[in-house]
Amino acid sequence: MLKKGGGNIKLAFITSNQHKYFEARQVLSSWNIDLYMVDSVKLEVQDEEIENISRTAAIYAYNVLKKPLIVEDSGLFIEALNGFPGPFSSYAHKTIGNEGILRLLSGESNRKAYFKASVTCVCNEFVMTFNGLVYGTISMEPKGDKGFGFDPIFVPKGFDKTFSELGEDVKNKISHRSKAFTELAMWLSQSRNL
Amino acid sequence: MLKKGGGNIKLAFITSNQHKYFEARQVLSSWNIDLYMVDSVKLEVQDEEIENISRTAAIYAYNVLKKPLIVEDSGLFIEALNGFPGPFSSYAHKTIGNEGILRLLSGESNRKAYFKASVTCVCNEFVMTFNGLVYGTISMEPKGDKGFGFDPIFVPKGFDKTFSELGEDVKNKISHRSKAFTELAMWLSQSRNL
Repeated sequence: MLKKGGGNIKLAFITSNQHKYFEARQVLSSWNIDLYMVDSVKLEVQDEEIENISRTAAIYAYNVLKKPLIVEDSGLFIEALNGFPGPFSSYAHKTIGNEGILRLLSGESNRKAYFKASVTCVCNEFVMTFNGLVYGTISMEPKGDKGFGFDPIFVPKGFDKTFSELGEDVKNKISHRSKAFTELAMWLSQSRNL
Repeated sequence: MLKKGGGNIKLAFITSNQHKYFEARQVLSSWNIDLYMVDSVKLEVQDEEIENISRTAAIYAYNVLKKPLIVEDSGLFIEALNGFPGPFSSYAHKTIGNEGILRLLSGESNRKAYFKASVTCVCNEFVMTFNGLVYGTISMEPKGDKGFGFDPIFVPKGFDKTFSELGEDVKNKISHRSKAFTELAMWLSQSRNL
């Protein structure tokens, strides 16, 4: 059960990705939510909707752990590539990388893309999923050395630098993941008074 | 239970892909194995090993259906792309298509690739997985109008035509899928005499 009232909420974050863990912890710490990382019990289904991936994984993990937990899934969806790499962003990054994405888009004038994160929380009697999106474009070349994944080629709308160039402080204010985690935090802070 | 002795074996093939179903039926019909297609109860996990994907899906489906069944998973693994698109071939084909693969390989002299199929059968008290591989190369352009998926850009070793140009009769003699299904059939025909 979650602590109600004044105490900090404690949630397991089911992930093997330390970058995601640190990003989430930074967002949630200001909401009196303590995360700890559990690198196991992750069932990741193939599905074109990342909501379904995070939801299935969260329910599966809860059936094993029996503790309040969250699971996050995210992807980069590129308009000119019909949504590729989408839910398979992690594998695409590992195999063809940023260079592969740029090659697929060479000569393409439509560089529109968005990142989407979907966070599912299983706690008390609730299974809740929160989404966050950030729109932007794919750059012509990789830039910057911060962040991870496709950060060096994604320029969020309203900026002229990639996520990698902007660094984690800026990224964590505007990113898909921070939006989804903020939605979660707002819901949790309300529900602790239920 | 499987029929023993002289009767035909009857197996559910858990798939939503009619091409795969017809390919499998063609291979298995000569072994007195009757297939029927069940387009549901498929849990497809994200995993870099297609054996694990087919095995998990088969066990999950069996727990729902409680009937002898098979599940197949397959992928195209391209050496110069570190195995991409691999287990996510279906989504990659749907989004970036053959043209995307050719673009990723433009200027690349190493065109080596292989198709791999993994078939898991759950019947009687057994869970058995059979693999089939076919080596070849990625063509410089799509050719042929038969088959499906990446067939128009895959030239099997020992041939100078793509799977699409060769047509289903030839493909079904040499393909990854026919090899995996033939292994299954041989095992089933032995085990029916156990």
